[in-house]
Order: sequence, then C-alpha cells, then structure tokens
Amino acid sequence: MPFKAPVEDMLFALNNLCGLEDIAQLPGYEDAQPDMVEAILAEAAKFSQEVLAPLNTIGDQQGASFADGKVATAPGWADAYKQLVEMGWNSPKTSAEHGGMGLPAVVNASIQEMFTSANTSFMLAPLLTQGAIESIAGFASAQLQEVFLPKLVTGEWTGTMNLTEPQAGSDLAAITSKAIPNGDHYLISGQKIFITYGEHDMSDNIVHLVLARLPDAPEGVKGISLFIVPKFLVNSDGSLGDRNDVECISIEHKLGIHASPTCTMAYGTNGGAIGYLVGEPHDGLKYMFTMMNAARLGVGLQGVGISEHATQHAIQYALERKQGQTPKGSEQTIMGHPDIRRMLGLMKARTEAARVLAYRAAAAEDLAEKAPDAEKRAYYQRRLDLLIPVVKGWSTELAVDTSSLGVQIHGGMGFIEETGAAQYFRDARITTIYEGTTGIQALDLVGRKIKRDQGAAAIELVQEIRDTARNAKQQNNTVADWTKLSAMADDAAQTIENVTKWLVERNDLSPQAAAANVLELFGIALGAWVMADAAIAASQKSEREGASDYLQSKLKMAAFYAGHVYPKAAMLKKVVFEANDEVLDLNAQDFEVA
Amino acid sequence: MPFKAPVEDMLFALNNLCGLEDIAQLPGYEDAQPDMVEAILAEAAKFSQEVLAPLNTIGDQQGASFADGKVATAPGWADAYKQLVEMGWNSPKTSAEHGGMGLPAVVNASIQEMFTSANTSFMLAPLLTQGAIESIAGFASAQLQEVFLPKLVTGEWTGTMNLTEPQAGSDLAAITSKAIPNGDHYLISGQKIFITYGEHDMSDNIVHLVLARLPDAPEGVKGISLFIVPKFLVNSDGSLGDRNDVECISIEHKLGIHASPTCTMAYGTNGGAIGYLVGEPHDGLKYMFTMMNAARLGVGLQGVGISEHATQHAIQYALERKQGQTPKGSEQTIMGHPDIRRMLGLMKARTEAARVLAYRAAAAEDLAEKAPDAEKRAYYQRRLDLLIPVVKGWSTELAVDTSSLGVQIHGGMGFIEETGAAQYFRDARITTIYEGTTGIQALDLVGRKIKRDQGAAAIELVQEIRDTARNAKQQNNTVADWTKLSAMADDAAQTIENVTKWLVERNDLSPQAAAANVLELFGIALGAWVMADAAIAASQKSEREGASDYLQSKLKMAAFYAGHVYPKAAMLKKVVFEANDEVLDLNAQDFEVA
Repeated sequence: MPFKAPVEDMLFALNNLCGLEDIAQLPGYEDAQPDMVEAILAEAAKFSQEVLAPLNTIGDQQGASFADGKVATAPGWADAYKQLVEMGWNSPKTSAEHGGMGLPAVVNASIQEMFTSANTSFMLAPLLTQGAIESIAGFASAQLQEVFLPKLVTGEWTGTMNLTEPQAGSDLAAITSKAIPNGDHYLISGQKIFITYGEHDMSDNIVHLVLARLPDAPEGVKGISLFIVPKFLVNSDGSLGDRNDVECISIEHKLGIHASPTCTMAYGTNGGAIGYLVGEPHDGLKYMFTMMNAARLGVGLQGVGISEHATQHAIQYALERKQGQTPKGSEQTIMGHPDIRRMLGLMKARTEAARVLAYRAAAAEDLAEKAPDAEKRAYYQRRLDLLIPVVKGWSTELAVDTSSLGVQIHGGMGFIEETGAAQYFRDARITTIYEGTTGIQALDLVGRKIKRDQGAAAIELVQEIRDTARNAKQQNNTVADWTKLSAMADDAAQTIENVTKWLVERNDLSPQAAAANVLELFGIALGAWVMADAAIAASQKSEREGASDYLQSKLKMAAFYAGHVYPKAAMLKKVVFEANDEVLDLNAQDFEVA
Repeated sequence: MPFKAPVEDMLFALNNLCGLEDIAQLPGYEDAQPDMVEAILAEAAKFSQEVLAPLNTIGDQQGASFADGKVATAPGWADAYKQLVEMGWNSPKTSAEHGGMGLPAVVNASIQEMFTSANTSFMLAPLLTQGAIESIAGFASAQLQEVFLPKLVTGEWTGTMNLTEPQAGSDLAAITSKAIPNGDHYLISGQKIFITYGEHDMSDNIVHLVLARLPDAPEGVKGISLFIVPKFLVNSDGSLGDRNDVECISIEHKLGIHASPTCTMAYGTNGGAIGYLVGEPHDGLKYMFTMMNAARLGVGLQGVGISEHATQHAIQYALERKQGQTPKGSEQTIMGHPDIRRMLGLMKARTEAARVLAYRAAAAEDLAEKAPDAEKRAYYQRRLDLLIPVVKGWSTELAVDTSSLGVQIHGGMGFIEETGAAQYFRDARITTIYEGTTGIQALDLVGRKIKRDQGAAAIELVQEIRDTARNAKQQNNTVADWTKLSAMADDAAQTIENVTKWLVERNDLSPQAAAANVLELFGIALGAWVMADAAIAASQKSEREGASDYLQSKLKMAAFYAGHVYPKAAMLKKVVFEANDEVLDLNAQDFEVA
C-alpha cells in the first residue's frame, strides 16, 4: 500500500503540543510560522510519498552490493539522492549562514520522521551527514569549515561517523586507530567496522569523521581525537584531488536495512590516510558526543517512523482482509475482530505518543539554542539531555514491538516477504542497537542525566507533568474521562519523582541493574504526559473547530493509552524498586547449560 | 557455538515436576522408567547435537528451492532425514502396536524440544507427519490404517496438513476445495496454501491430509470432510503406483524457517486427485482439531526450543565478548554488565518456566489417555485442553521476545546474519502464527476452554496452584525466599480464579477484547506455579544430594521469575478487568491515516 505521511498528526503535534508558535518567535526562526510550516510539510510529504517510499521495497530486496572496493546502491537510489540534494532536503535545519533551510529542529524532526518512515535505509545517508555537519560546524577550524561544510550541507558530499573497531564495539576506550602528525595534517591508520554509507555511488565525495589516537595520547577515552578524512582530497580551488588512502574492504550481510551499506573501512593501508584534526587533540569524544545527540534523536525518529509505516501497513491489511465472522456486524474484514483492533490500538497509540515525545525533545533543542534568556536556554538544554536517551531507547524498542505486531496482524501473510510487513520487523531491529544500545541509553539516563545533576532535570519535568494533570482535571466536558487522564498524569509525575529520588540516593549497582526498566518507565510515563496533553488539545480544538474523525481518534488513543499502555508503569516501578538483587546475584555459573 | 541439549534440566523437569515415575506406572509405559528415559534422552541429545544442529545454519542460508514442481531441500537434509528414520526418531510416542517406540507424551515432549531446538525447520516434517499419524490412527478405517500408518510411523513417508486456502486463512468455514465421490474413493480438487513440506525430496511418498467439501455438504464448518491424498498411489501389494493429481506449484519466500518448504498445492488440475475419506463425512474439522492439539503442543515446544537455543547462543557470546569496564570485577566480559545479566535472566527463567508448563501439558495427555480411573482420565483431558492454547500461545510469544533479546545481547553483531542470532529471531516469528495465531489460541482459551465448562478446568488448576503455595510456605530452609515464592503462587491462583469467574460471568464482547491478555496472564501465572514448584524440588534435591551449580541456578531463576516476570500479572489483570471498552470502541474511522 502507498505510504502516507501523517501530516495532520504532525501539525497537531507541532502546533498544539510542541509550541511551534513560540518557537517561531525565536531569532532566526521567524520564517517558521505555522502556515509556512504546513506548506513545507506538504512538500516534504510529497517527496516522501513519491520519491522515497516507492524505493523502500526494492532497496530491501536488492540491497547494496560490493565489488572491488566499490559499493553499488540499489536501483533508483542515486537518482533519488540527487533529487534530495536538488530540492534542498538534505539538511533542513542547518542555518542559512551555512547554506541550509534554517528550520527549527522541531520542524526538522517531522520532516526527518516522514522521510525515514518512507525509507529508513535511504535516510541513513543524510542522517550521518547531519552528524558530520554538526561536528564540523561546531568544532572544526574556520578553514576546515570552508572546505567541507558547504557541500555536506547541500548533500553533494555525504558524511560518516567512524567509531567502532572490531575489538571495541561500544567500548570507545579500546580504540586503537592511530594518527601520526605529518606537517599540516595527520596520517591515519586503522580499521573501522559498521560504517554506515562508508562507501557508495550517490555522491562525489565522502567525508569520514574518524576517532583515532595521537602518539602521545593518554590511555582510555581521554586520549581520543577526531579527524576529518575525506575519500577524495580537496584541492585549494575546491575541486577534488587525489584518492585518499581509505577504502571499503567489505560490507555486511544484515538482517535488515539491506539498502544501507554497512562498511568495514581500512585506513592507511598504503602509508596513511590524510586527515585533519577537528578541534583540540584528545577531545574527540566530546565532539563525537555532540554529534551523537543529534544522531540519537534521529534514530529515535526512525523508531517513530518505522512504527508509523508498520502501523499504516497493518491498518490497510486489516481493512482489506475479509475473514471469519466478526462479532462487530458492520465490519466485514478482520478489523472487526476485537484482538486486531487491540493490536492496532497498541501500535497507533504508542506511535503517536512517541512522536510527540521526540518532537518535544527537538523543541527543547530549539529553545536550548535560541531562547533569549540564558536560564531558559540552560533549562531546555537539561531537558534535551534528559529526553534524548528516552526518545532513542523507548521509540526504538517500541518499533521492534510495533513492527512485530504488524507481522502478527497479517497472519501467515506477514511471514511472506513479498507482503512487506516483515521488512519493518527486520529494519526496526537495528534501531535499538546502533548509536548506542538501549542498555547504553539506559545507563546514560540514570547516570549522566539523572544522578549527575541530582535529579534536577527530571524534577523540572515532573513539575510540567503536574501542570498537565491539573489542566486535565480542570476540563469540564465529557469527550474524555478527565478523571482517568489526570490521574494517569499525576501518577506519571509521582512515579518519575519517586524513581528519580531513589536513583539519586543509591550508591550501589542497583541503578545499573534497574536502568533498562527505568528507561522504559520514563518512556511510558512521558508518553502518558503527552497523551494527556494531546487529549486536552484535541478537546479544545473540537470546541473551537468542531469534532472530526481525527480529533475523535486522538481522544480514543489517549483513552487506549491510559487503559492498555500506562498500566505497565506500576509493574516497572515494582521491578525497579524491588528486584535488583535478583539481577546482581546472577553470575556466569548460573548460565551454564545443564 | 555448538548447541547442547539441556538434558539435566529436562530430566529435572520430567522426574521432579512432571511425575515421570507415576507415568511409568501406566499400562504400556512400563519401559519408561527414569533410568531408561535418561539413556534415551542421552541418545536423543547426541542426535540433536551431532546430526540436526550442524545443519541449522546451512538450512537457513541455502533454504529449500523450487523448480518444475520439485522441491530440493538444503544440502545434507535428505541424509539427516534418512538417519532420523533409521534410528527410529520419527515418532517416539506412537505405540509399539503401530510400530513406534511407545514412549509417553511427556518424554516425547523433551525429545521433540531438543530436536526442534537444534533445527526448527527440519523438525517440521516429522511434526506434520505426527499429525497425520494421529488423525489416521484415530479416525481412519482399519484398511486405510494398514496402507498408510506403518510408513508414516517410521517416517519413510511424511505427512502434511492441508487446511488453508488463499481466500480463507484461519477461517475454515470459507474452505471451497471439492471432493466428488467416485467409486471407492473421491476426486479432490482445489488449491491449498502454506502447506509445510507439501513437496520435498526426503521421502518416497507424501501423505496429504486435506480438508474439502462433499457435493451435499452443508455450508460452514459443519460441511468439511477430511481426506487422505497420497502423492503416489499405493498398490495393493504396498508398492508405490501412479503419481496422483496433486502438485506443488510454488514455494514461499519467507522471513524465516527457510529450509522448510512452504508450498502452494494444486489438487485435481487434471481431473481430480484420488482421495480417501477419513471417518465420517462432514466431520473433518473434528478430526483436524484432534491432530491440531498435537501440532499446537509441538509448536509450543518449538517456542521453548527456539528460546533455549537463542539463550544458549547469547550466553556463549556474553561469556566470550570482552568489552568495557564491567562493574563486577571478576567478569572481564559483557557478562559482567548488569543489564546483560538481566536480559539473560529474562531469557533463561522464562524458557525454563515454559519448558515445564509444556511438559506438564504432555503429562496430562499421558494421564488423559492411560490413567486407570475414568474420572482421572477426564480430569487430565480437561487439563490438557486448557493448557494447550496457553502453551502454544505463551511459549511462542516468548520465543519472539527471547530471540529478540538474544539479538540485543549481541549488539551490532546480532544484526549481522553470519553471527546466527538473527536466525532465531526470524524463525521464531512464525510460531505465533501457524497452527492458529495467538489471537486464535486466546479465543480458544476463553471460549472453548473456560467459558464452555463454566471455568471447571481452570478452577481445578487453581486448587493445584494453591497446593504449591502451601508447600512453598512449609519449606523451612533459607535457600530461597519462601515467603515471596508462596505469595507469588497464592497470587497466581487467586488471579486465575478471579479472571475465570469474570470470564464466566460475561455475556458481552469483553472476553474477546481481553482474550490475548488473559492468555498471557495465564502463561505468567502458570509459569509462577511451575517455578515455585521447581524451587521446592531444587531445594529438596539439594538437601538429598547436596548443592550444585545447576540447583543453585534453578533457585535463582525462580527468584528472578518472581522479581522480574511475575509482576506483569498485576498489569495484565488490570487491563483485562478495566480496559475492554477502549478496544471495542475503536473502529475503522479511528485508524484513518491523518
């Protein structure tokens, strides 16, 4: 079935739940007025539906292929990429100063979501390029910026992030790639794995951002520097020069995202690849983390986007598939079966919650950057930092589950690859792993984002959730069960407060044992917050503009969330508070196969 | 890593939790004494580890292939099948009278689990053959039995189940295949889809069991008859005769179980396939359900087996993969990370619970068949009927989740197909669908198995769970937290009782809306029952024979189950009792993409 970008839901979220109007008052975002944003999203929807979505299946089936150091992308890929570049969709949020559209992050979030929803594998190229742009714009010298930024922003060149090494995985302290000073540049050598779009045939040049160690580097994560290593060197006139000493030596055979080449890159097999230091020596990890925040939000949006597409696919099937005597006489398709509606409700309600949460993180990014008041900027920076691991971890775990429900709704047809339901299930499976596994997001949340500031950012959030609860309590119509929704928001606030205090007080390993459940608990509680707000906004919009199927559905999804999703919070709270010894007591002997 | 059949855990379950000693007293099972069973499982383990497991990966990678009506199985498949037949492993539970080993169902369950754990795709052929054996032995005439049974029992011929048609899916009322009387046989025509091992190169003949309608058949499910349609006709001397008018016209390209050919079968394209009526006309569905009970238990065991293999794979990886500074100094691998141990605990504790529950269903089958007392037989038949949908539904949903955790533990390597973790994730995904989706199992549970007998079978089970709770309370050592375990069992009993009463009282659609959550709740509550029993048995065995790593691990897994798995019961209970309108209120308009 054709993908449809959920523009109405996106605009509802932007305008009613993420404060677009206020964001459009910020310096530099004056063009992002709601009507302009609506026009932009309409154009983006067209591109996602007409250019990106039609390539999703062929990308899965034919994938990227490798021969003699070269990677051929799937048929149609290079042409679609050219269109992306020409239409200016490569980097909507880069400032006009650097050649971008200068859109707020929150608007960019909805564009990225619809693009990645239409074609996850394709959009990994721009996602990684965005990371490169932010590292270079943020930390590289003016001279390096001049050489590399303009074409990364347009997308004429793509970017990559080179962290992982075969022996190191998520453990960046174990990185061994070397950088030897050599005049105005460095000679880089080493092997990197899992490099997304490390090699391909869609752009003239590829700009690798590579973590490596200088000869005098201290051990561990404090001895890692960041280098720009272009595939082709750039002459002083901006034209492309010699091929650098970097090559793709293989690509992976993966469960999903077949069209996104996952490369093993060899640097310096012929004496050393020419690289340029970004920022200060040994500070590479800091720069990489900056670019990782953006990438983690991007992967969180992949979670939302894949969930959305899988949900649409399942809805369409449920509306078309005639089968069985349904208890609901009016529905002659499997949509009439209560359990199908239950599964679709789970898919849709959680996807909508995850969307708003991700957009709120993006809105926090805008305010953290541009709010006139320094205190407000700091407030929203804390908010952004807190939300990133939740958005990344929760949305992606959700995508795994949602796409699995999508397969289930298709019955036997879901297991047949031609149906298409299985692709979301396979593609989604990487999202909880790359850019930091859910376990790593969870440690980031409980450690850096909660314990380090003594829970300050989390408690600020609790206040806002309490505002929502109060607001819900004050609604005086019958379009929703406001008692239930306000109780849910109140409980969500109290739960986050209690868990935060508990985390701050612990000095043992229990926060680590509990971390993944804390992350899911935050996701579910924050989902409750945004769904209560969504119900309030939908009710108010109904009163202003009259009821509609869309607003009616939104109110039902909030009720569904309260009835079917939120109850897990109590379970998770119990596990977090009471069952950490059961984890910490386990050791290798307990896992011997008997 | 090499697969290891978990023989010690299986024997612990058989001897200490499933009453093997008592079952070995039943007429016909006298040979199944515990020491003999131990020897048989050791042999079966060898076959699973040395013959079946080594073919699992090549089966996935090369799969079955189709050309000109013929299906070629993966390299090594036909030879392994020959060994299975020669060693008598095809149908261990078929009575000696019919040429089988005559083992109890509960022992057979452990053999089937280890075989399917080693190689799920391969074991689908014997699983379907077993269904054919049971239908024919149970309902076909002596003459048909004489012709078809012996070679199905040895496995020289394989069997298939032909239910699904393209327009019908799970809805058997919509079957349109025809059977026209023609002398001593019938002419069958129609198309069947999703026929597992409908065609292959491993056996001399294939015996299809086909649902079709006679010319005078009433509409709906009461007009369906069951026919034997052999690929090759059988001459009166038992030799193979002409090719019948049935052929495979294509096989599916699937997400997983690549080595198991999923065939579209065309019957009667040249005038009609010769078929023989099983039992009475129009009674086919009844016969098919009988064979489906066995098949559903078999698929439940697939869930256990895939979970076991995925867990072993993840354990091995966690023990080998060096990465990061683990908080537990003694562990230099990712096993030291609390979240890895948490995930492995979830995998292992639930797999062990699902194993015991499946074996208890099989033990009920033995007692239902052979207990000397008619009342006892009826009691255990009710028990078996009640447990089948829970074992099928819960174990398979578990396998999807467990194999997903297995991928997650592997990090980026889990997404690379060569690692092998992804195969379990793909293979598991069909188990919640075939032989009746989880939604269908759930309707079977709440409708036929609970409401129809006014909850009698469920309440009988509640009494046994209360016995377990009492027993746990009476333990007076400190190897486990008996207060917690007995409270868990008590709560499980009370929850099942409350949900059962609620279901029996409802005359609206809410049991349908709640069904899938009721099924999961039963799974978790019955898992609590068997894990409490397992802890008691492990404690007693420790006292008798001294502590061991195995028994220590078993006690920890029971504690882990109580801390991390059982808390979901409260959540599910809340959803079941309070959130059905939220499902039933949803309709097609609510799912329009906005």
